[in-house]
Amino acid sequence: MSKGAIVTRAEDFPRWYQEVVAGAEMAENGPAAGTMVIRPWGYGIWELLVAEMDRRIKEAGADNAYFPLFIPESFLKLEADHVEGFAPELAIVTHGGGKELDEPLVVRPTSETVINSLFSKWIQSYRDLPLCINQWANVVRWEMRPRLFLRSREFLWQEGHTAHATEAEARAYALQILNDVYRATMVDVVGIPVLTGHKTPRERFAGATHTWTCEGMMGDGKSLQMGTSHELGQNFAKAFDITFSTRDGGLEHAWQTSWGASTRLIGALIMGHGDDGGLRLPPALAPAQVVVLMIKEDEAVRSAAAALVAELRAAGHRVRLDDRTETSFGRRSVDWELKGVPVRVEIGPRDLVEGNVTVVTRHTRVKETLPLAGVGTEVAAILARVGPELLAEATSFRDDRTVTVDSLDAALEAGATGFARIPMKVLGDEGEDRLGAKAMTVRCLQRADGTLAEEGDADADLVAVVGRSY
Amino acid sequence: MSKGAIVTRAEDFPRWYQEVVAGAEMAENGPAAGTMVIRPWGYGIWELLVAEMDRRIKEAGADNAYFPLFIPESFLKLEADHVEGFAPELAIVTHGGGKELDEPLVVRPTSETVINSLFSKWIQSYRDLPLCINQWANVVRWEMRPRLFLRSREFLWQEGHTAHATEAEARAYALQILNDVYRATMVDVVGIPVLTGHKTPRERFAGATHTWTCEGMMGDGKSLQMGTSHELGQNFAKAFDITFSTRDGGLEHAWQTSWGASTRLIGALIMGHGDDGGLRLPPALAPAQVVVLMIKEDEAVRSAAAALVAELRAAGHRVRLDDRTETSFGRRSVDWELKGVPVRVEIGPRDLVEGNVTVVTRHTRVKETLPLAGVGTEVAAILARVGPELLAEATSFRDDRTVTVDSLDAALEAGATGFARIPMKVLGDEGEDRLGAKAMTVRCLQRADGTLAEEGDADADLVAVVGRSY
Repeated sequence: MSKGAIVTRAEDFPRWYQEVVAGAEMAENGPAAGTMVIRPWGYGIWELLVAEMDRRIKEAGADNAYFPLFIPESFLKLEADHVEGFAPELAIVTHGGGKELDEPLVVRPTSETVINSLFSKWIQSYRDLPLCINQWANVVRWEMRPRLFLRSREFLWQEGHTAHATEAEARAYALQILNDVYRATMVDVVGIPVLTGHKTPRERFAGATHTWTCEGMMGDGKSLQMGTSHELGQNFAKAFDITFSTRDGGLEHAWQTSWGASTRLIGALIMGHGDDGGLRLPPALAPAQVVVLMIKEDEAVRSAAAALVAELRAAGHRVRLDDRTETSFGRRSVDWELKGVPVRVEIGPRDLVEGNVTVVTRHTRVKETLPLAGVGTEVAAILARVGPELLAEATSFRDDRTVTVDSLDAALEAGATGFARIPMKVLGDEGEDRLGAKAMTVRCLQRADGTLAEEGDADADLVAVVGRSY
Repeated sequence: MSKGAIVTRAEDFPRWYQEVVAGAEMAENGPAAGTMVIRPWGYGIWELLVAEMDRRIKEAGADNAYFPLFIPESFLKLEADHVEGFAPELAIVTHGGGKELDEPLVVRPTSETVINSLFSKWIQSYRDLPLCINQWANVVRWEMRPRLFLRSREFLWQEGHTAHATEAEARAYALQILNDVYRATMVDVVGIPVLTGHKTPRERFAGATHTWTCEGMMGDGKSLQMGTSHELGQNFAKAFDITFSTRDGGLEHAWQTSWGASTRLIGALIMGHGDDGGLRLPPALAPAQVVVLMIKEDEAVRSAAAALVAELRAAGHRVRLDDRTETSFGRRSVDWELKGVPVRVEIGPRDLVEGNVTVVTRHTRVKETLPLAGVGTEVAAILARVGPELLAEATSFRDDRTVTVDSLDAALEAGATGFARIPMKVLGDEGEDRLGAKAMTVRCLQRADGTLAEEGDADADLVAVVGRSY
């Protein structure tokens, strides 16, 4: 049970975030430092998000599989950039079955290396390509400043790994995932208007030749990297000897991609839509889309509530009945607000006598007294509006905090509270150093019109989106 | 791509199993000893199984959540039987983020202890009960003789954990899971006619007061424990201080259950239904229920195949088109047999001229030449028969290998190749010792009529089902 009122975003955004996570019973710290317990409300959101992403991943032609948690330490060392990128974050198993192991095992920070070692067995011929594999799994990275959903020492994610016959096919697939899986899920389902672009060399994934990213603006103006799709070139193919015989009898290294999105998306959902009352959920991700709340225990109230729950369920909505009348009405209302349930229907004996109920729309906090008869239609109409309205609100918030600038100083100012768009010609590599000194980074590079760079675009001709980030 | 012909079950059952797992591309060994890679065909089966179980678990009122992979070593020691049961099987993380840890972390062999530590925070009052939580996760047990799906050092499973106000409620819930989730899934979905009963004290879960089990007979007459549901009494509640204030103001320890089923079920599916041609899948668990196989590349064949695939998909079946005509027809047929796809429709130019196709039913290996027109109806009819016929076949196989005996010697003989049913009065504790010497165990205790023991039944009045096991 939550504690009720929380601090406002304006007072203390990080504390507000923590209080929403705790108050909405989404997650809490596990007993081992830096680990996370995802409670049913948070996990229910994750399940819905997984289903949405998984469907799109399968439509993009990838098959799910599962790879081992433990990786021999020697494997990680096969790709030089990769091991350098991950070495400081590893958890190491040194003992198993009561004995010290001959070779320590790394708890996967990503399955890149183990999957590539298998790709080298599975891929022989051009007929085996493209090979597109996805995994839903837990991974471990030894974060020093853990925050629930945003940076925990263990998190849940999907990681896709693919191999293709040509560089062009690999690029096309990396972009298909970026656009049709990530961007589509983040915009259409999570309701966050992500910017897409590619990372500068210093921000790339360890071992990638290109990292494409989705960046969402959070309620404090900071950016959150919500998913990345990498082109790996032939780096891992060479390190792991992934070769295929070509149609005309040659032998070539495969071209690869990898891509991931994680429980971090729940952090984005909280910080992208939350208000001072707590979470605001788009119906697509709400474990309960409607709560029917009995104000008091009363025969007429109970029977009206049961009938409404049945009607709404029959209409295909996810509905909870709140009949915990031993707990105060006010406390329960605040709890459902915190949890972000899109629509609340309150049924009490007095209103019911007149045939009325109270309908509360979470994202606008509008409260209406409406006739019980026909309220199902009204609820459906509200639910249809919530997602688009949350997206529109997040979009105008982002646009209000995005400034196009033509000097580094202006970028440093605007980037502190939102996004600064600055030509890479103006920023340059040295400017990127200076951003770092102010805890800012280039979130992504785009064309001036906000579209992705195309073959032949030099980074110097693009615009850098600059901001602070999680 | 599989290698084709496999050894027969009669020749070498364990090798047959390995060859099916490899040949059907279900799983293979990971690079770290004892770990398992679940390939798309195996994982596709798992996804279908998870969906079936998850739906039933939710109908039983449990919510999904997620708990940390790492558990402080001290936690495991809080429940004495539990730590004794698991200590020899643990994997230990000693280093994280480049440093030796102050307290080593155990990689969860089960989340029992960490979940109970949270239950002690979440449960305060009778209003918080029952609390029913389920988790889908990977767990690690340092098996010394690993076998894919049956005993691997990491496996996937679900573990349910619940807390109740009374012992009777806990028992009722443990049995609800046993019957409505496990038995229902295993019989109705996997098609294995499991026996249900409870374990003798020596076979119980470490820390449980009662372990209820589902035991399936495999194709070699051995038993496989396919899922267990435990009553934990107040053991963990006392160790982890899980108390609740009662309605009349008292303070009591909760009564608990836990229950799990794992990727082992895929092993049961293979060994319960497989034949000398490989896997035989019930349609409910077949990633592809029908494969439409083009015998040769040919315009008419391709167009007929595409139309049939579309028709079958529209009818709701999972369908694959096999147009890999560069690979020999015979090789591809053997591959689909190995993979256990329930129905294969072969389309070739010669038959097609006469408007015919060949339909092969995997589980009976019946091959029919049928008119293409109307073949969709025929396929649907076959698919409807497969599940019940596989279950019937497994049931008669089990019944043929089950003998009711009244002496230990007879039990030792019959139990070597199947199930021996022997009164516990005859077997006794000493008899159980002697079974162990012959690599046999009591798989479960039941009433003589095969039903579960009820309140008041003494173990001595029950029948022991004796056999070898995995």
